[in-house]
Amino acid sequence: MADLPEIVEGFGPVTPTRAARGAVPDKRMPSLAEAIRATGLRDGATVSFHHHLRNGDAVLNLVMDALSAAGLRDLHLAVTSLFPVHAPLIEHIRHGVVTRITTSFISGPVGAAISRGALAVPVTLTTHGGRARALETGQMPIDVAFVAAPAADAMGNVSGRLGRAACGTLGYPMVDVGVARHVVAVTDTLLPYPLVPRDIPQDKVDHVVEVPSIGDPQGIASGTTQPATDAASLEIAGNAAAAIRASGLLQDGFAFQTGAGGISLATAQAVGHEMQARGTTGSFACGGITGFHVKLLEAGLFRALMDVQCFDLEAAASYARNPAHQGMSAAAYAGPHVGGAVVDRLSAVVLGAAEVDLDFNVNVTTRANGMIAGGSGGHADAAQGARLTIVTTRLIAAGYAKIVPRVTTLTTPGATVDVIATEAGLAVNPARPELAERLRHAGLTVLSIEDLHAKAAAAATKAPPEKSRGPVVAVSEYRDGSVTDVIRRIEEG
Amino acid sequence: MADLPEIVEGFGPVTPTRAARGAVPDKRMPSLAEAIRATGLRDGATVSFHHHLRNGDAVLNLVMDALSAAGLRDLHLAVTSLFPVHAPLIEHIRHGVVTRITTSFISGPVGAAISRGALAVPVTLTTHGGRARALETGQMPIDVAFVAAPAADAMGNVSGRLGRAACGTLGYPMVDVGVARHVVAVTDTLLPYPLVPRDIPQDKVDHVVEVPSIGDPQGIASGTTQPATDAASLEIAGNAAAAIRASGLLQDGFAFQTGAGGISLATAQAVGHEMQARGTTGSFACGGITGFHVKLLEAGLFRALMDVQCFDLEAAASYARNPAHQGMSAAAYAGPHVGGAVVDRLSAVVLGAAEVDLDFNVNVTTRANGMIAGGSGGHADAAQGARLTIVTTRLIAAGYAKIVPRVTTLTTPGATVDVIATEAGLAVNPARPELAERLRHAGLTVLSIEDLHAKAAAAATKAPPEKSRGPVVAVSEYRDGSVTDVIRRIEEG
Repeated sequence: MADLPEIVEGFGPVTPTRAARGAVPDKRMPSLAEAIRATGLRDGATVSFHHHLRNGDAVLNLVMDALSAAGLRDLHLAVTSLFPVHAPLIEHIRHGVVTRITTSFISGPVGAAISRGALAVPVTLTTHGGRARALETGQMPIDVAFVAAPAADAMGNVSGRLGRAACGTLGYPMVDVGVARHVVAVTDTLLPYPLVPRDIPQDKVDHVVEVPSIGDPQGIASGTTQPATDAASLEIAGNAAAAIRASGLLQDGFAFQTGAGGISLATAQAVGHEMQARGTTGSFACGGITGFHVKLLEAGLFRALMDVQCFDLEAAASYARNPAHQGMSAAAYAGPHVGGAVVDRLSAVVLGAAEVDLDFNVNVTTRANGMIAGGSGGHADAAQGARLTIVTTRLIAAGYAKIVPRVTTLTTPGATVDVIATEAGLAVNPARPELAERLRHAGLTVLSIEDLHAKAAAAATKAPPEKSRGPVVAVSEYRDGSVTDVIRRIEEG
Repeated sequence: MADLPEIVEGFGPVTPTRAARGAVPDKRMPSLAEAIRATGLRDGATVSFHHHLRNGDAVLNLVMDALSAAGLRDLHLAVTSLFPVHAPLIEHIRHGVVTRITTSFISGPVGAAISRGALAVPVTLTTHGGRARALETGQMPIDVAFVAAPAADAMGNVSGRLGRAACGTLGYPMVDVGVARHVVAVTDTLLPYPLVPRDIPQDKVDHVVEVPSIGDPQGIASGTTQPATDAASLEIAGNAAAAIRASGLLQDGFAFQTGAGGISLATAQAVGHEMQARGTTGSFACGGITGFHVKLLEAGLFRALMDVQCFDLEAAASYARNPAHQGMSAAAYAGPHVGGAVVDRLSAVVLGAAEVDLDFNVNVTTRANGMIAGGSGGHADAAQGARLTIVTTRLIAAGYAKIVPRVTTLTTPGATVDVIATEAGLAVNPARPELAERLRHAGLTVLSIEDLHAKAAAAATKAPPEKSRGPVVAVSEYRDGSVTDVIRRIEEG
């Protein structure tokens, strides 16, 4: 031991080193119950989850069962998205295990239950970027983040590229593990240390729990991830692609996002053909990524894919093999607090809609009757970020008009929507007269939004449902935490 | 605009969304001066730098000049290491631009100046892991982190794999960018957005500044990064390798770190031959990585390289092409606060020494006369983490004994050192009698540390210098922030 002064001026009090060796560290826990105990989780805490396994996810249900069995109550569930597979959550809500939910998207029975008043406290519906902001600014502290880990090692290195349920990038938990007080990786594929290459490094993970299965990889590709082929969809996609072509934005460096729906992908297909014909090389395609986007990358039409979440197994496989298929966190993807996210560099985005209104506002949160059946996800983020935001929609669906005087729920503000593409033609936001001019000049059918509404109303066979006046069951937040709309309790059923 | 209540029970006050489009974001700044202004940096602030360009680094000098020109004074310089190339820093110390320094290693004129009392406040010498701990626990807040970026794009994505001074992994600034109030990337290679693959993502960077050159890539490989070939070094390396062979640790899963010095690499070479002969496959080699380690990986002797910093251009090239050559942050590498760092999973580490004493304490911080000429870097981290820590040293150097009664400066506590390997044989820490027995049983020359000291003293031609009794000029911290020793002012010169 060195001979040390008790205090050093300009440094402070001196604590002499007493160095010793410890045991070989190992973060494995024998069960979820033990891991939960180790985190010191208490009633009222916030637990976070991510949805890369989408409708194949088993981790949220497993962990919620363990939290319930541990006697925990009054939990705040901060989950990036909820799917039909998460229906067992309704029981946990009934028993008071979960009393608050913050999420960016809900499809399936949980949305219906919430719409009928299952929770006393309104659900907060965030955008993907808004959630990242709430986490990284400290507005929504996370007590324990549970990571569905397709592969992990004993020290908490996590990979989305390996394992039975390899889902590709892990863009959502990348944010959570940076801020959570505790992080638990849940895996069904424990690999020798050190796992390489990893998507989440060991220093961000506290505990590792092995379970028989984290889910069904086939459930990752829930919903369409193929271009639509029916006539009406192709008409809409053709109109959307024509708008992009005429916009002047389709030049080298073009940056593009589409949803994973059939119309969006059919639009991307048409845009891809145009790029090929022109010899245009785009900079990047971003968002949730499908095998279709991988084809665009591999055809050389884009230099890079920026991927927060793989929407199918082809995308996951590409991420694992191709360095130009880059993973990114939700903060990098869409955070409004990072001085410019990836979405803020988009040339164009093609998005879907449940409803569009005369102010170009878009609803992707509820059905026409007000039932929760979605949420922004990255919709509002990308719409604000892109130079050109195109919303594609049919005029009617299931007999209801989709172009309406006022959306049932406002998810994405009309001020950030430039073009509505339908099978009857295009409407351009009056705030963009120069764009309308370009589209008309290119010979495209440009109608007023009122014209589209009139056509939709004429084609509709059902009257729009009454808007509910019940108590608020959910609040739809914008990227910055302001409120776009509230969702009220439904009295039906 | 939706019709919103002013307050929602269970949610709070409602701020209605006022969405608008912004300009296309771009983080480029026309000059360092403008970037510094944009950070709002003030007198007394803490600025951080990293040393991946080692003795080729131009960024620290460029930025310090700009900070000085901006009239800033009394800055705290938090830099991972300082090299001879940073000699201009002495002028900034003289003029009061820098009045405090925290670093893990100093070689060259700055160390000499500090030893002669250039700074009024003692320098804090941290370990690589201890620095990461101080940053991530909030003990050492960083106002502005400057990142020497071999390549960057206009949004702050940074790559160490591309550009004229591609240095490979960026393990040190990975920690800084996560905690700093502002981050400025300084690059000489601005690439089209988005740069892929990137090592630091855009959401962690605030400003990007282009400069003519961030440094000389040839300076990265400062010091030896080839195995030694002289007889004495090979004798020491042979003894060290024999100790590893006899330790029982050389089995599948073996995890290994060596320094980049000639004796360390010669030891690694001998260990590699033994692994090849036995058909042993190691798990990982870690630390600063050289082309020599790359050969071990490519020969299949290790499954992975865990790399906080590339020590030569061969290593940088391997990192860019091989996913099994994994980058890691300083926190993951050596942080004592992460529940188990990579060093804590080491089977064996081979480290150098300026001096070793009868308690197995090691000095790599000062020369025998007390002049600062090094620092722990990862030395103390790896010594504590490894199951077997071997320190290699000649008995004498420049006429002075290297095995001494008490080290001039205690960098790495003897409680974490198991074996001293010299050309005259091995000494085993008395705390490890079972290890001494194994080594003897294998026929190795095991002497007492007192024997080694006696041999060194007999061979020495110069008497040990007097230990200085001047005021404290530096404090050597351990991983956990406790103090291993203080360094006092030198009166010579």
